[in-house]
Amino acid sequence: MSSHHIVRDDQEPALIIANGASCDPELLGQLLEWSPLVIVLDSAMERVMELGIKVDVLLGDFDRGFDPHQYKTSQYPIEIIHTPDQDKTDLEKAFDYLIGRKIPAVNVVWATGKRTDHTITNITNIARYRDTLKIVILDDHSKVFLLPKKFEKWYTANTPISLIPIGDVTGIHSDNLFYPLQDDSLKIGYRTGSSNRVLEDGIVKIRHDKGDLLMMECID
Amino acid sequence: MSSHHIVRDDQEPALIIANGASCDPELLGQLLEWSPLVIVLDSAMERVMELGIKVDVLLGDFDRGFDPHQYKTSQYPIEIIHTPDQDKTDLEKAFDYLIGRKIPAVNVVWATGKRTDHTITNITNIARYRDTLKIVILDDHSKVFLLPKKFEKWYTANTPISLIPIGDVTGIHSDNLFYPLQDDSLKIGYRTGSSNRVLEDGIVKIRHDKGDLLMMECID
Repeated sequence: MSSHHIVRDDQEPALIIANGASCDPELLGQLLEWSPLVIVLDSAMERVMELGIKVDVLLGDFDRGFDPHQYKTSQYPIEIIHTPDQDKTDLEKAFDYLIGRKIPAVNVVWATGKRTDHTITNITNIARYRDTLKIVILDDHSKVFLLPKKFEKWYTANTPISLIPIGDVTGIHSDNLFYPLQDDSLKIGYRTGSSNRVLEDGIVKIRHDKGDLLMMECID
Repeated sequence: MSSHHIVRDDQEPALIIANGASCDPELLGQLLEWSPLVIVLDSAMERVMELGIKVDVLLGDFDRGFDPHQYKTSQYPIEIIHTPDQDKTDLEKAFDYLIGRKIPAVNVVWATGKRTDHTITNITNIARYRDTLKIVILDDHSKVFLLPKKFEKWYTANTPISLIPIGDVTGIHSDNLFYPLQDDSLKIGYRTGSSNRVLEDGIVKIRHDKGDLLMMECID
């Protein structure tokens, strides 16, 4: 059983365990340790149970013969939220739930790596939460988040950095990247900033004027 | 050893084995059987060798201490292509190579599933090959290709279909989808056509006026 339930500070990011490929249990353990709230999406619950994790919220449309109520005793207390709205993915519904609870930040695992349609939708849909929720999507190779219009962070030299535009992004400037951007534009499918890297130990600055720009810190 | 080298018909799709997550060997075997040409990208060659596959072309920038020439004997005859251009991914260079050889179509495996930056770049960059190469990206859960402006194909009822726009796509019409589109627009990150499905056994028609629209046939 994880120790995550000992710490209850709504300023720490919540954790959503989505329904894609499982990640390294060590990554999951690190995220659980500080998470005040653990949300599991739909039938991912079956895989989560095998890991002995205490779950706070189980959310989904439960439309494939999966019975969420079987966990009421083993996971007591657990909140079960039935979300039949077909206009949103379960992940978006979980984001909406967190916003409703005024939780400001969330880490998301298992959101990538199986169906490509789910991966690309989960990754790019975080654009619409720019002003409402700080979202980081993690897997064994990647850490993905939406860049604010002005971004600054310290990195070691040669850290791989990919800038992936969701649509069109204009007015991009960077400091301390190996392939610098100076009033550049990126366009998904045509010109992306994949496979850049940090020039030297120190602050990387990236700013952009218009559009949604994803930061991806990835390793092989 | 695969039997792919028996068939040499340049009208069949070539096969590119990229450098992401490996797929089910059965899927790979099916694709190899009819492929007139097998291209492997960079250090993926190490994993390919373990599968006993005859490779025709080994292509990459080979910038991480990987020595391609060690395969000259065991894979004789093999063409080794050194592509140091940093403005393109190895996958794009392989597409360019095929276009240069006037090969009209290619299946791509191992292009998804590890680094998220590589997955999203590989998937969305096929837009720029609309007029030059028919590309299908496959993994264990997904078959992805760019839709022509007018598309028709027979499907069985309830086949999952996701329509993912690369940027903005306008003037979309569909026949025989559960969630029909009628002069609809899709926008990556904001409004996608993920998780649709075929209404009944028969022809599905999808047409769109502007933009690049990906078809994803995915299964859990």
